[in-house]
Amino acid sequence: MIGRLNHVAIAVPDLEAACAQYRTALGANVGAPQDEPDHGVTVVFIELPNTKIELLYPLGDDSPIAGFLEKNPAGGIHHVCYEVPDILAARDKLKETGARVLGSGEPKIGAHGKSVLFLHPKDFNGCLVELEEV
Amino acid sequence: MIGRLNHVAIAVPDLEAACAQYRTALGANVGAPQDEPDHGVTVVFIELPNTKIELLYPLGDDSPIAGFLEKNPAGGIHHVCYEVPDILAARDKLKETGARVLGSGEPKIGAHGKSVLFLHPKDFNGCLVELEEV
Repeated sequence: MIGRLNHVAIAVPDLEAACAQYRTALGANVGAPQDEPDHGVTVVFIELPNTKIELLYPLGDDSPIAGFLEKNPAGGIHHVCYEVPDILAARDKLKETGARVLGSGEPKIGAHGKSVLFLHPKDFNGCLVELEEV
Repeated sequence: MIGRLNHVAIAVPDLEAACAQYRTALGANVGAPQDEPDHGVTVVFIELPNTKIELLYPLGDDSPIAGFLEKNPAGGIHHVCYEVPDILAARDKLKETGARVLGSGEPKIGAHGKSVLFLHPKDFNGCLVELEEV
């Protein structure tokens, strides 16, 4: 069912410093910051040859990243995103296995303009999993 | 400098259950468990079309994963591994930027039989980074 690893998201306490580090010290191809007010985050995509790293930084007062950074002031790996061909079929199959879908259970439009869902980390080895329909 | 994302490692409290979940609920291609006594872990690789997920489970009494699972009993994302063409050149460049290399600072032979190094998570947005020479 799951296909490619679309991205690994890393929450960072200083977006500019993180971009500079990936660009200069790690020599990666770092994109421009994109504000995503609907998701409460500013994102920067780092293009690797086979997948992407998504740097996440809080945007606005209700950012879902703010609590994570309070608990992890240095930042940390926030989630992994797997591609699926049919997000509703994937959701229904996962719910049958007892996995919990976060929020309303209906897909939202994610930062890439595609349908996404998040699965409860407690049901996936402490790992927040995003599914993205491609 | 960094190339492909070689893998994302997830520490799991129940390797059999995690394998079953990735195989059945997530429909992924799950390999056989491999004991790595030199690294204190049993690993299972999940082959995605573009990269791998590495499930990590403690092996032996001195496993480097044991402490992580004590702090994160449900499991969690443990590290990301980036490929580099020349691990000594990468290390020296990163040290110049102030990044700390874990352990002796000399590459070890990792679970894939390649030279690897780990970088201090505090220097990389709370994210433990493995570099693997390919």
